[in-house]
Amino acid sequence: MLPPLSAQALAPGATVGVLGGGQLGRMLALAAARLGLRVHVYAPEADSPAFDVCAARTVAAYDDETALAAFAAAVDVVTYEFENVPARTAALLDELRPVRPSPAALAATQDRLVEKEFLASLGVAVAPFMRVDDAGAMARAVAQLGRPSILKTRRFGYDGKGQALVREGADLAVTFRSLGGGPAILESVVPFTKEVSVVAARGLDGAFAAYDVCENRHENHILKFTTAPARLAPETAGEAVALARRIAEALDYVGVLAVEMFVVATSGGGEALKVNELAPRVHNSGHWTLDGALTSQFEQHVRAVAGWPLGAPRRHGREVEMENLIGDDVFAYGDLLRAPGACLHLYGKSDARPGRKMGHVTRIRD
Amino acid sequence: MLPPLSAQALAPGATVGVLGGGQLGRMLALAAARLGLRVHVYAPEADSPAFDVCAARTVAAYDDETALAAFAAAVDVVTYEFENVPARTAALLDELRPVRPSPAALAATQDRLVEKEFLASLGVAVAPFMRVDDAGAMARAVAQLGRPSILKTRRFGYDGKGQALVREGADLAVTFRSLGGGPAILESVVPFTKEVSVVAARGLDGAFAAYDVCENRHENHILKFTTAPARLAPETAGEAVALARRIAEALDYVGVLAVEMFVVATSGGGEALKVNELAPRVHNSGHWTLDGALTSQFEQHVRAVAGWPLGAPRRHGREVEMENLIGDDVFAYGDLLRAPGACLHLYGKSDARPGRKMGHVTRIRD
Repeated sequence: MLPPLSAQALAPGATVGVLGGGQLGRMLALAAARLGLRVHVYAPEADSPAFDVCAARTVAAYDDETALAAFAAAVDVVTYEFENVPARTAALLDELRPVRPSPAALAATQDRLVEKEFLASLGVAVAPFMRVDDAGAMARAVAQLGRPSILKTRRFGYDGKGQALVREGADLAVTFRSLGGGPAILESVVPFTKEVSVVAARGLDGAFAAYDVCENRHENHILKFTTAPARLAPETAGEAVALARRIAEALDYVGVLAVEMFVVATSGGGEALKVNELAPRVHNSGHWTLDGALTSQFEQHVRAVAGWPLGAPRRHGREVEMENLIGDDVFAYGDLLRAPGACLHLYGKSDARPGRKMGHVTRIRD
Repeated sequence: MLPPLSAQALAPGATVGVLGGGQLGRMLALAAARLGLRVHVYAPEADSPAFDVCAARTVAAYDDETALAAFAAAVDVVTYEFENVPARTAALLDELRPVRPSPAALAATQDRLVEKEFLASLGVAVAPFMRVDDAGAMARAVAQLGRPSILKTRRFGYDGKGQALVREGADLAVTFRSLGGGPAILESVVPFTKEVSVVAARGLDGAFAAYDVCENRHENHILKFTTAPARLAPETAGEAVALARRIAEALDYVGVLAVEMFVVATSGGGEALKVNELAPRVHNSGHWTLDGALTSQFEQHVRAVAGWPLGAPRRHGREVEMENLIGDDVFAYGDLLRAPGACLHLYGKSDARPGRKMGHVTRIRD
């Protein structure tokens, strides 16, 4: 066995434990293998895509404390591919092995209200928001923030799930109940000109490396296209990266962090940024880095959680585009395999259900 | 399950069986996973590097016919990461599942004498060679080809193993016995100016795609550096690719094929090519394509054996260099992780024995 680079770093051949077995876990496992690390995936679903590419598997619920303890004993560090890891799971694992990013970073980003309050406390611009715990609070929040506004569950939302637009004339009590009636947050609608994100990493040593700010286009609330670099004024792009860095440092973050932002036109004809959401993990808007950058976001995350130096986030080509293959899109895989310059990724999912992310394609433009 | 592109093609989610569990099998498995294919690795050694990244494993000897039959039943196509698959193993599997490249291609390339005779029959220039089956034939061959010449075992040679230089004054019987006294071949020494290789692929549909001819530098008979493109006159590079294509077509080849060649200075000041060796598989001199080309050689091989269209072999950057990490070289992994622009690959081997390939690094120069 090769020696580790420091007391907190993994040695080559060590095992990275990954909570979650979806495509992000799968691509993390592939990146870890490339670096000579073993991966142990923990996921509740027996047909998890990541299980096909890892050295060890645990199929168990996230609250199965016996399975969690055995998992911790079998790995050298724990990371995760999604932010909805239960707090108790993270806390239990954290007593046994390093959890990177930390349970505190997880806690700050898995609840929309906590996240927005954290961002506001840092002086980061966000859309006006109010806490909504019941129908009365809902009415007060809409009176305050106006319409249209967006009601979001505080937890477990993704790809537009757990969200409802509050239009003129909408029945507020009905809207509140439509999301289950649980803890929620109302946000003003931001009249954005673009959606962008910063995918960046912070190492165990505090080093910071950001990819080019990228521009995202959603369809049916699901990311469809990402283009890097985003068409932004250089100072706006610089500010976006500085915001991501400020957030990562405030969280003492280790790993890849994605910061989704809205670009808003200012009255003076300039651009301003409002942070929409954080993801304490590798992110769909960073998939272009698999083919389009010297170090992929997956390798970067593995380097960070292993306590290894970060890699260069340098982009290939003049522009890189990523297109998600959602649901039936994947039936075009033959055309995509034939398309000159297209790099196809399929996630090994057998059932192309509507809205399901089945794969993606990247294209590098010179 | 998605439909296959043709009757002979695999559907996404199908299983590629790989004979051999070394780093080539490991990198094939990673490439197949990226394309949504499952991989089943068959290897005799329980600690095979490829076992950490595949969906299914068989630990069994290559002559275990029960294990081979079960393996065939579990996979949709069979390929291999090394050319020393026993002929009987290939024949047995070929009755049950498509074997790509074919057992005939394997047979033509796993015996140096058969390979040289095949190349000569195509009109491809090779070093003068003679069959050596016993000490008497050895003496006649040296008398004919002169000294220095090289005695090579007909099978199982790699990285300079199974070779002996026949110098002035050497005892021929001793030299012959030093290689075990089995079937061998004597070759004239080629006074080359460069060693180059063509890594190319041929699809099930007959499509052909070659990477840039690359230039190789060996140390202690083991590949140490590859640079793409090779410094060659354009017409020499074109001829090298044409030779590889002729060979692939003559073998009705499916998959990635590597053709090692010597560049020889001609009396007119030009360059001529002599083919040294074929490898019916992905090849160490193609590792630069993992980071340095749009489609890696591993993905290209998987596409071919899956019956899928070949990908674009386009190179990134002005030049790509690959450096093998052999034995103790790997102890520098920390420096390599830190080196700007270096892409590190480790193979997950725990024991850095002298001469053992532990990983490699690629560098793209713009």
